[in-house]
Amino acid sequence: MAKSYYSMVLDHPADDVWAVIRPFDHYAWAGVESETVIEHGKAGDQVGAIRRVTSGGRVLRQILLAHSDTDRFYTYGFCGAPPFPVQDYVATLRVTPVVADNTSFVEWWATFDCAAEERDKWVNHFEKEGFAKWLAALRQFMAKQQGRGPRRNLTSAVRPVA
Amino acid sequence: MAKSYYSMVLDHPADDVWAVIRPFDHYAWAGVESETVIEHGKAGDQVGAIRRVTSGGRVLRQILLAHSDTDRFYTYGFCGAPPFPVQDYVATLRVTPVVADNTSFVEWWATFDCAAEERDKWVNHFEKEGFAKWLAALRQFMAKQQGRGPRRNLTSAVRPVA
Amino acid sequence: MAKSYYSMVLDHPADDVWAVIRPFDHYAWAGVESETVIEHGKAGDQVGAIRRVTSGGRVLRQILLAHSDTDRFYTYGFCGAPPFPVQDYVATLRVTPVVADNTSFVEWWATFDCAAEERDKWVNHFEKEGFAKWLAALRQFMAKQQGRGPRRNLTSAVRPVA
Amino acid sequence: MAKSYYSMVLDHPADDVWAVIRPFDHYAWAGVESETVIEHGKAGDQVGAIRRVTSGGRVLRQILLAHSDTDRFYTYGFCGAPPFPVQDYVATLRVTPVVADNTSFVEWWATFDCAAEERDKWVNHFEKEGFAKWLAALRQFMAKQQGRGPRRNLTSAVRPVA
Repeated sequence: MAKSYYSMVLDHPADDVWAVIRPFDHYAWAGVESETVIEHGKAGDQVGAIRRVTSGGRVLRQILLAHSDTDRFYTYGFCGAPPFPVQDYVATLRVTPVVADNTSFVEWWATFDCAAEERDKWVNHFEKEGFAKWLAALRQFMAKQQGRGPRRNLTSAVRPVA
Repeated sequence: MAKSYYSMVLDHPADDVWAVIRPFDHYAWAGVESETVIEHGKAGDQVGAIRRVTSGGRVLRQILLAHSDTDRFYTYGFCGAPPFPVQDYVATLRVTPVVADNTSFVEWWATFDCAAEERDKWVNHFEKEGFAKWLAALRQFMAKQQGRGPRRNLTSAVRPVA
Repeated sequence: MAKSYYSMVLDHPADDVWAVIRPFDHYAWAGVESETVIEHGKAGDQVGAIRRVTSGGRVLRQILLAHSDTDRFYTYGFCGAPPFPVQDYVATLRVTPVVADNTSFVEWWATFDCAAEERDKWVNHFEKEGFAKWLAALRQFMAKQQGRGPRRNLTSAVRPVA
Repeated sequence: MAKSYYSMVLDHPADDVWAVIRPFDHYAWAGVESETVIEHGKAGDQVGAIRRVTSGGRVLRQILLAHSDTDRFYTYGFCGAPPFPVQDYVATLRVTPVVADNTSFVEWWATFDCAAEERDKWVNHFEKEGFAKWLAALRQFMAKQQGRGPRRNLTSAVRPVA
């Protein structure tokens, strides 16, 4: 199984990080200059929603396959061929609390298939050119946001009531 | 951990069963006479959606906590106090394909807390008076539906494209 | 991700099925004529144990990577190159109770990498020539065994006491 | 569901931490003065093994319920009544790599049942008097060990070869 995996600790509570990344149509935090819209008027936390990311003249379409507010993760794949020569690319982004100091552990991974001789290349590519950079951008995004005021309020809207 | 668990094999493909049960606002298949609406115009596959089930003059409110089209499950809890003396009730309903004969394995479980001396009572209650009956009703619902024509088409809308 | 998956319902309680398949050095149930020994005197439920399967003059070595008596599964991989041109083959065999009629749901899956043009071939091969046949053999094994007396006793040794 | 959960980041690679904690009969790292032996000559990575912890004149017996070298976790419960008034106590200890800086994320949690009015008390107790302290002791243990030489070699023995 070709699998790329990256993880990082962020200096913010898990609920705060989740509040930022949980909407599937919010992608500004990843530091990718793009316009992201959800097709057909669906919501950013609606499983089956397709987001259309326009970046540098290129258009990507990704579908939300799973979303959990209990385990703070979402899973997505591509609609149609992905923009690199791999198949069955499915990725998950998850946030878990680090209780000891009220920070968070963020993981991003993808499984996919590709030509056998290109496996190491793509495993590395997604980890280093993708997940590592986007999570570094998320760290910056969280830091800036903190300067702008508390995020805690956001969280209350999305936490389980049960 | 107080946990109730029930499971059953249904004579229908997993995708067909999932197509029926996946909308959080569809509850007719469970054989409970009720009116179910989702609050605030949210969708039945939108995590965070609250369904309001009116049955026999009683109103229940339940929130969708997680939903996965890849693993065909959804998880929900109660908003406010549940209609029985238990706490932190969280339930999951999941469908898995039985490849050998193209049928499906359906599981329903809940975890919760309650008075120690009532634990066995409630574990049994949810299993036998809840999950077992609702899944038996689902079996009937699927059987009747089959008589009304193919369900396969429904499925195509909700399967991962990735 | 190249993944082979097969599942089947067996007419025996999950604990009975698990009692038969749980020892990593017991492989007779799979209908493969072979001699299976665990290297270095390790036990069949010891994670890290390596089994040496000699069958038709060929020798396979497989390592036990995970084992769970709570979820009734074990996971294994190959030591050295597997006997087919795939990489990173890791397989899991799991048993879950079908509560409704006290039978069991048995799943067997593997993830691996291989040449892109051979993916469908190997996905199919493991499902149909491997898991499907071995589980059919397990069904026969369980049926014969039943004739020879109760298996329930075996189970008590391996169930959680907690 | 009564659940206690604690997590911490340790300044050591996940494989090094796992190499220390993976033997069920090694408990010195937790900072509890005790003598720990496995009954009946079983191994510390053998599922079903029972460890007998003698500490301050008290004897605890715990059974290994699951162990995974792929996901670096083990799960255990009590044999007989636990030394506190709770039921069905089952705990898991897991290590995950923090790829960004080659450290590790360690989680320890337990689920159990108890008297309703004592739930908060025990949830807190296991988190703060148990997991938090034992993981703090593990941190110290790892720090001291580092002074004594490399641990990497240990790891090679337990990592999947597949």
